[in-house]
Amino acid sequence: MIRHTVVFRLKHPPGSAPEHDFLQAARQLALLPGVERFECLRQISAKNPFTYGLSMEFADAAAYQRYNGHPEHTRFVHERWLPEVADFMEIDYAPLA
Amino acid sequence: MIRHTVVFRLKHPPGSAPEHDFLQAARQLALLPGVERFECLRQISAKNPFTYGLSMEFADAAAYQRYNGHPEHTRFVHERWLPEVADFMEIDYAPLA
Repeated sequence: MIRHTVVFRLKHPPGSAPEHDFLQAARQLALLPGVERFECLRQISAKNPFTYGLSMEFADAAAYQRYNGHPEHTRFVHERWLPEVADFMEIDYAPLA
Repeated sequence: MIRHTVVFRLKHPPGSAPEHDFLQAARQLALLPGVERFECLRQISAKNPFTYGLSMEFADAAAYQRYNGHPEHTRFVHERWLPEVADFMEIDYAPLA
């Protein structure tokens, strides 16, 4: 199991229509092959600068790689993520024996 | 639900006995009141400087606050976390309507 997470901050004003539209578009990533336990979350700690998070799981590294290379994912990254996200950090987890 | 996560890097050499001992001590936090779905994880993305993560859930902010103030938690922070952790970031999630 690999849990892929990304915590981020949008350029859009909080509560705005563009913000809502971005989050709706992000939720469509849940439909891509291999994506399990998809979550779109609010980040609530004051100890970092981020306001939202995505979390999803993949069975293994191959499934994660297929997701990364899927045309719908790369389209989302280029058309929505890069233009609309102000700052982000990716954190990926695997089980610890 | 609040999911409290912290991603971190230890001062100890990877694979060392002190590293193992720290992780074993961290796992005891799972026993504190209010802690649900505790996980000790390996961080595997090359896009951040961290190597381990803890994730746990609380029913609500009051349960999270009780955990933070629990003597066993504060003792762990002072006796193990602060001396042995080189760098860390806390990320807390709540459901997004």
